[in-house]
Amino acid sequence: MSANEASPSAAIVTAAILVIGDEILSGRTKDKNIGYIAEYLTNIGVDLREVRVVPDVAEDIVAALNALRGRYTYVFTTGGIGPTHDDITADAVAAAFGVTIDHDPRAVAMLSERFSRDELNEARMRMARIPAGADLIANAISKAPGFRIGNVYVMAGVPAIMQAMLDVIGPTLQTGAKMLSDTVQTGLREGDIGGPLAEIANTHPEVSIGSYPFWSEAGPDTNIVVRSRDAEKLLAAMAAVKAMVALEKQRLSRSN
Amino acid sequence: MSANEASPSAAIVTAAILVIGDEILSGRTKDKNIGYIAEYLTNIGVDLREVRVVPDVAEDIVAALNALRGRYTYVFTTGGIGPTHDDITADAVAAAFGVTIDHDPRAVAMLSERFSRDELNEARMRMARIPAGADLIANAISKAPGFRIGNVYVMAGVPAIMQAMLDVIGPTLQTGAKMLSDTVQTGLREGDIGGPLAEIANTHPEVSIGSYPFWSEAGPDTNIVVRSRDAEKLLAAMAAVKAMVALEKQRLSRSN
Repeated sequence: MSANEASPSAAIVTAAILVIGDEILSGRTKDKNIGYIAEYLTNIGVDLREVRVVPDVAEDIVAALNALRGRYTYVFTTGGIGPTHDDITADAVAAAFGVTIDHDPRAVAMLSERFSRDELNEARMRMARIPAGADLIANAISKAPGFRIGNVYVMAGVPAIMQAMLDVIGPTLQTGAKMLSDTVQTGLREGDIGGPLAEIANTHPEVSIGSYPFWSEAGPDTNIVVRSRDAEKLLAAMAAVKAMVALEKQRLSRSN
Repeated sequence: MSANEASPSAAIVTAAILVIGDEILSGRTKDKNIGYIAEYLTNIGVDLREVRVVPDVAEDIVAALNALRGRYTYVFTTGGIGPTHDDITADAVAAAFGVTIDHDPRAVAMLSERFSRDELNEARMRMARIPAGADLIANAISKAPGFRIGNVYVMAGVPAIMQAMLDVIGPTLQTGAKMLSDTVQTGLREGDIGGPLAEIANTHPEVSIGSYPFWSEAGPDTNIVVRSRDAEKLLAAMAAVKAMVALEKQRLSRSN
């Protein structure tokens, strides 16, 4: 490899999340997985680029999955892999990949660790239906596995189980240069610094600068978040932001 | 209108949410709007069918918006309408609709209620940039308006402001026959009832039956949620579920 070639760790690795479930769309269940996975991926150097939530409808799952898996390095799905009739994710994933699906002996063995022969009824055996060619993802909590096929990771919807599966998946992922970030709480209103902040954004094009207003007990306030894969560029942009904030505070205190 | 024609209240009204913001995808901010809007829409008889989260990238916003607005009755966006350079939602919406965008005198008047002439700098004036032909959505909290263009409602990302805007929008929406739902906590494991539940789902095709496992202090448990727009069909399916649950409890207590 020549010095000019990007090393694997400098590559940008992207991802999407596909949340599957009527209960999220009806508002009955409030999703806790998107934020968790987003933070997890950011921390290991994978860029989450898109999230979709779709109902328990096979054609919607297939369409979303095929759109996402062609566009990003990885797709993570949550939900729809339980033992009941409304759990159709595995069948939809098989359809999206154009492969067959059947009871997988490895998955049956995992379920047998938890369930007796009597308990392993037709409903529970649904959880052993795995698309042909998939690798299983261990489930330390309730045994029923997730699976990986191609660049798609199929996980449970129950947060504790999803998190256990993600811990199994994480170390196997290709990761890119980690996105670094730094935050400054300005003590200023967003509209007071929008102009000079835009100038800093213009003169630091390889850095992403976000502005997030909030109310504290002291009144309106704004966090500025600077993000970059390059530590030096991050530092330079952050220095510019801090200098600007100090200047604006002076200016505003003089005008009051 | 003949008796056979659907009345407006019997129509099915659909919606999608488009969440716009790098901070959601990085995991830095945990979204609170999806669940809130989902519950709100369900309560007024609007079916939320899809959610997407995209970054602060104009072409991604335009592509998602054009995909969603053609497919659903309504699209609700959150985020990206503040005063800083990373707030690009209004411009992206204008691009998606192929219309111009400029400072809107009505929006400037709203901002003038809160900000002095000195305060109404170029950054804050960004919040008065409204696509041509849009109606404004009042913002009771911080004045900067949202807007509606076509079937797209553009709202703030800050939850309190989004909620205030949704309260303005809600009464103006066409709503359909409300989705009714009822829940039974079974006290049983999901896998124990998956078989008979699937039979009930088969014999009640116009009712949607969801199964949601959870852990209580007493151990594994499952909520069954039955949903329908028809109160009688809901009642009939729920009776079947309750009878099945009672039977399975008997059967399991005998086998233990």
